[in-house]
Amino acid sequence: MSARQMKLGLFLWATGHHIAAWRHPDAHVTAGIDIGHYIQLARTAEAAKFDMVFCEDAAGLREANVQIASQTSRSIGFEPISLLSALAIQTERIGLVSTASTSYNEPYGLARTFASLDNLSGGRAGWNLVTSASPIEAANFGATGLRPHADRYARAREFATVVTGLWNRRAAGHDGESFSVRDPLDIPPSPQGAPVMVQAGASDDGKDLAARTADVVFSAAQTFDEAKAFYGDLKGRLAAYGRQPDDVKIMPGVAPIVAATKAEAQAKYDALQEMIPDDVGVALLSSYLSISDLGRYPIDGPLPELPESEGMKSRQALVIEQARRDGLSIRELARYFAGARGHWRVVGTAEQVADELQARFEGGAADGFNVMPSWFPGELDAFATLVVPELQRRGLFRKDYEGRTLREHLGLKRPVKGFNPSAALCRTP
Amino acid sequence: MSARQMKLGLFLWATGHHIAAWRHPDAHVTAGIDIGHYIQLARTAEAAKFDMVFCEDAAGLREANVQIASQTSRSIGFEPISLLSALAIQTERIGLVSTASTSYNEPYGLARTFASLDNLSGGRAGWNLVTSASPIEAANFGATGLRPHADRYARAREFATVVTGLWNRRAAGHDGESFSVRDPLDIPPSPQGAPVMVQAGASDDGKDLAARTADVVFSAAQTFDEAKAFYGDLKGRLAAYGRQPDDVKIMPGVAPIVAATKAEAQAKYDALQEMIPDDVGVALLSSYLSISDLGRYPIDGPLPELPESEGMKSRQALVIEQARRDGLSIRELARYFAGARGHWRVVGTAEQVADELQARFEGGAADGFNVMPSWFPGELDAFATLVVPELQRRGLFRKDYEGRTLREHLGLKRPVKGFNPSAALCRTP
Repeated sequence: MSARQMKLGLFLWATGHHIAAWRHPDAHVTAGIDIGHYIQLARTAEAAKFDMVFCEDAAGLREANVQIASQTSRSIGFEPISLLSALAIQTERIGLVSTASTSYNEPYGLARTFASLDNLSGGRAGWNLVTSASPIEAANFGATGLRPHADRYARAREFATVVTGLWNRRAAGHDGESFSVRDPLDIPPSPQGAPVMVQAGASDDGKDLAARTADVVFSAAQTFDEAKAFYGDLKGRLAAYGRQPDDVKIMPGVAPIVAATKAEAQAKYDALQEMIPDDVGVALLSSYLSISDLGRYPIDGPLPELPESEGMKSRQALVIEQARRDGLSIRELARYFAGARGHWRVVGTAEQVADELQARFEGGAADGFNVMPSWFPGELDAFATLVVPELQRRGLFRKDYEGRTLREHLGLKRPVKGFNPSAALCRTP
Repeated sequence: MSARQMKLGLFLWATGHHIAAWRHPDAHVTAGIDIGHYIQLARTAEAAKFDMVFCEDAAGLREANVQIASQTSRSIGFEPISLLSALAIQTERIGLVSTASTSYNEPYGLARTFASLDNLSGGRAGWNLVTSASPIEAANFGATGLRPHADRYARAREFATVVTGLWNRRAAGHDGESFSVRDPLDIPPSPQGAPVMVQAGASDDGKDLAARTADVVFSAAQTFDEAKAFYGDLKGRLAAYGRQPDDVKIMPGVAPIVAATKAEAQAKYDALQEMIPDDVGVALLSSYLSISDLGRYPIDGPLPELPESEGMKSRQALVIEQARRDGLSIRELARYFAGARGHWRVVGTAEQVADELQARFEGGAADGFNVMPSWFPGELDAFATLVVPELQRRGLFRKDYEGRTLREHLGLKRPVKGFNPSAALCRTP
């Protein structure tokens, strides 16, 4: 029995994380706008004692390429604050984490919205800070182009300072480079004090910001060595900000496909992979590499040399390294990549999947995992009924919630409490 | 029996609309952040067949003046999108209308959020467009001051055009003075087509914008003549935009206090009025008049001459007219005004309250009313159990919902349907 236990998040996403999920015979094609679907997923995750559910977000079409958009159903979905507020009322314990951008919001409004969700849920909210690297989003917010990487992060740092200041009641006012905020929030602290701060940026700026402010870091790592290097790098940055290694939980994404036998799991995976049309795979790979003309290279040839873009630097590096390492053609890389969007994929029995998770958890490569089922609800149900009990048997995962708030689930400290203006409201005149 | 029936909205607000509501012996002081409280109110309104619940909003402390803030509990409350998303799951029929500002949001994000709530609720969302006249909010959004009235409305007009374009799938793109938006929304139309557009601005610019784009107008009118003049003015502006009088429902606010006898109702009202401390009344009046030094004038003397501000022009005019008409001192005006925030107050039996509502409804002064109970849940319960059945007996209000969407409740046309990109997602490759 290990005293330390892993943390588990469920990454919610419409029909599922596999690009061809919607073609699965049992898939729910309009899942993205079916609140009943999301309630079912959140309740399944809560029954399995997951720490949290997590929503990505982008204010624009997820897939700019019409070849992809017309051949996936995951481009359509709820805006996450409204979705998680609805889920807050239909669940009791599980954490509710939403992505929101520092590029297209103002800190007072964002701090207020998450504080509201945090109160609504009894202390279960989290904010995944993103800087919005996509030119698709930029085109919907009056920008003529994307801000340079370093500028986005400078704004994000100030944004995070203002938001955490508002949440923790330390800020009597802020007058900075990008933002000026006078008032405290009109919403008091929730039972967990303040929403959990999540980040996923894996660039140098991203890791530095995470070391400074994050409670949880979602990462993407294919191999054990990549995961361990990222883990060590990020934990090593914490001391510079007066923080302990355990103050940040690092949770790489994992796309598990599990069945009673290895052969059955492999067959499920192969069937999904075969549903990926080549044009969709190539278009998706192009969008992650931020280049528009990948389609003009021979599909069975190697990936061409690519200039570094201002987009997702780290994601791009991962994909390129993947192709070089395995000597993959564009078609092979596209298909491989499309299946789990650059995340770690594990195919096998419950014991085999648990072995893999345990190796990373105990080998200094992860504090837990953000689970990305290939299609909903099937692969979530398989993980919840097969892998979770195996992890529990090994003492690697909780059998019941220890507390009521997301901070309690994650074993995170309550943020420092300062002046609480709501207390002033209870005095008699 | 009248074929035409009135529309009823419930204006949700923490402990209640009366400034001293929190001092009521049965009041729930922390109601503003108690989701159970709001669920109870929404269900009461739904059982009484109200058309909608309505949330005001301002991203900042509602009461800048510490004298008010420390002596009311309504400064603290949920952010309304998260609140209404939670209520959407706990109700089935009632409309859900939230205020949101054109000054501190971007149209793509706002259109997306309301479209999400609209889907989540099965077609029951509405957006109350405000331009944010408060310097309190401005100070939290990096602005050095408030934008001039006319500039705010120019931005609001363009904002509304972009949002309705996105909702109605007409906009393939927008490149204007304040905004540039490329994509369609990533959320399909709800069963009502698009959220209902609500407005409350009563200035000339406000009425013009309402005539152009609103489905519902909330107004504030003390007397029958004021209400009738506003009603005629606004309906008269519709033809210029190719619209019919019935395309816009005008719903003035009303603060009813109802009991089995007139004397009992009056006693309930008097008791609340006596709970208003003078300093709070004067400070509240000052904030509505956008002047900071009302406290230095003799409290038993008349209102001083005031310059026109860039704030709420129409609200200011109403208050000043009120004082002049009735020859009120600052103390009297402050107390009178504090009780219903400039809205129409009706005190009496169910029959008397119904008589008053009927007179305005049949006299060309209202299509319905936005009900503002003095304290929750008491005065809502009284209205729902006493006044609503009386209105139903007279054939003036529905006994059951005719449809499932807010547009159906209000008898509004479904907006023009254009290209629906979600339809494209259902084709097989």
